[in-house]
Amino acid sequence: TLAAPAIAQTNPKITWRIASSFPKSLETIYGGSDDLSRMVSEATEGNFTLQPFAAGEIVPGLQAADAATAGTVEVAHTVGYYYVGKDPAWALGAAVPFALSSRAMNAWHYHGGGIDLYNEFLGKQGLIGFPGGNTGTQMGGWFRKEINTVADINGLKMRIAGLAGQVMTKLGLVPQQLAGGDIYPALERGTIDAAEWVGPYDDQKLGFQKVAPYYYYPGWWEGGPTVHFMFNKAAYEGLPEHYKSLLRTACQATDANMLQKYDHLNPTAIRNLVANGAQLRPFSAEILNACYDAANELYAEIEGQNEGFKKIWDSIKAFRKDHYLYTQVADYTYDSFMVQLQRANKL
Amino acid sequence: TLAAPAIAQTNPKITWRIASSFPKSLETIYGGSDDLSRMVSEATEGNFTLQPFAAGEIVPGLQAADAATAGTVEVAHTVGYYYVGKDPAWALGAAVPFALSSRAMNAWHYHGGGIDLYNEFLGKQGLIGFPGGNTGTQMGGWFRKEINTVADINGLKMRIAGLAGQVMTKLGLVPQQLAGGDIYPALERGTIDAAEWVGPYDDQKLGFQKVAPYYYYPGWWEGGPTVHFMFNKAAYEGLPEHYKSLLRTACQATDANMLQKYDHLNPTAIRNLVANGAQLRPFSAEILNACYDAANELYAEIEGQNEGFKKIWDSIKAFRKDHYLYTQVADYTYDSFMVQLQRANKL
Repeated sequence: TLAAPAIAQTNPKITWRIASSFPKSLETIYGGSDDLSRMVSEATEGNFTLQPFAAGEIVPGLQAADAATAGTVEVAHTVGYYYVGKDPAWALGAAVPFALSSRAMNAWHYHGGGIDLYNEFLGKQGLIGFPGGNTGTQMGGWFRKEINTVADINGLKMRIAGLAGQVMTKLGLVPQQLAGGDIYPALERGTIDAAEWVGPYDDQKLGFQKVAPYYYYPGWWEGGPTVHFMFNKAAYEGLPEHYKSLLRTACQATDANMLQKYDHLNPTAIRNLVANGAQLRPFSAEILNACYDAANELYAEIEGQNEGFKKIWDSIKAFRKDHYLYTQVADYTYDSFMVQLQRANKL
Repeated sequence: TLAAPAIAQTNPKITWRIASSFPKSLETIYGGSDDLSRMVSEATEGNFTLQPFAAGEIVPGLQAADAATAGTVEVAHTVGYYYVGKDPAWALGAAVPFALSSRAMNAWHYHGGGIDLYNEFLGKQGLIGFPGGNTGTQMGGWFRKEINTVADINGLKMRIAGLAGQVMTKLGLVPQQLAGGDIYPALERGTIDAAEWVGPYDDQKLGFQKVAPYYYYPGWWEGGPTVHFMFNKAAYEGLPEHYKSLLRTACQATDANMLQKYDHLNPTAIRNLVANGAQLRPFSAEILNACYDAANELYAEIEGQNEGFKKIWDSIKAFRKDHYLYTQVADYTYDSFMVQLQRANKL
């Protein structure tokens, strides 16, 4: 046999495309693609390039995962729950009502078996995914009128998608599907009564407080949603081992970085929103408890007919129970004391 | 001039040593060095090697940063507050009493200017540092007797170090310095009354519940301590740019991974501790408030004579105020509802 060449091509030239589900205007969540791209490019001296494209540039935002499955692009930067219409199990890697906080979600993904469980599912779509961002607990959205009781939800037309919409339907809400740019005029005209978007930093760009000033929290359907990088499985498996490892490392760093960025930007945003007329309102205990019961009803229905969903959801539920047993001790008690100091203006 | 060679040595062979401040028996926190080493080695096909050494193998654990300053090793995996005896500003990159939670600490480091501010300080020691782990809020430690009031603290001999020891001294506590292995016998003989260590997963290895069963929380002196990778500055600056970038990415991933690992391991540990006799006790509001006031007294004293400390501490305080204004809305309210469900056995 011939001897191998003396100098192997250590960092081969590879150019990939990322289809983001997000517009560039949501620069924090879209920016996860830029972060991954920069980290990977820098570490390989520009040899491994991942070029991000905003929603609509290659495919519409809600088809990013499909484009990665088809190989139109090698990577989708997206959220699993966008594909819940195909199978509710898609949402489990991202967020479902009353599931995990950002912190618990990351622990479940990385050490509680979450990445492997979700990839068993994604593998059937020709994909392999790794966490690539988190927003923290989202807000519950903007309402034209105050809602205090479960009766107030009945008949409400709300822009809300996926499983959360299905849960609220059980309480009489009428879910509406609207693209981001159509929400404001619909709220202004009263075509809809309420709309959820993301959290303070992203919401402030759309000015909802002018037409629907009651800003409810928490968004119990997104306690800590994971944004994913989903790779075309064959493309990922065809990479040299050191590129695969680098991608995983850069995904984990990008995942952490998005929440860190939001946590830096959201405090100023929420202050500005309140200064400009937003009225913060917590969902009442009555509403939260009714939604929790309705969510459990929905889960029981889905589990009965979807083994794949049940397998992942059982794992999340067990993790959730353990997590809230444990973090209520030191972490939650510490945060509670600090929140008290903040409210007493002692910080 | 001569032409550059056609094929540059893309991933040059570099072998570095990491002096860890931790024994291998604390495998979660020590394991951060293994994580960084693995990520960097894999991404460079074994060309950039970071070899971790446990505390005592090259230098004693509490001299890891000094060894990196001196160039005895290129990297220390350590916690800034170990060096508080030289200058209290060392502690600010890690944790000081009543400062930031793990989540806020990471946001401050990565987007609130923390990394640069702390590196202005570390630069004077010939070091450059990046976050390389977090434990979450630690526990308040093990006590032979219950303590309910500030008067109960007076005269208490407690194994507790650094600024927390100085704060408690103001309330009459007598801080003791003891290495990990000496704590158990000292508690058993009653030479000391109390000792703080880390959190459930690490504490359970030492069996403290047998000799000091009251397990207090939260450890308000470590709301979210950052473990650092501190690099010899000249060595870091001499690296090729793509190795520098890779190191930063791998540090950010390692930093996230440590908390994710603790969050996976701690719930089982706390259940086991309670099953084996540990009695969980929250610090009373009286004690927490008195400690907070005493901490602020101490900070005022230090600030008056240490400009460098003041500059970093002012930044942390501003971030803390913003953070607890914001996270109390969606995140804290969501966690509160989930904790209520957990306590009602509804999860």
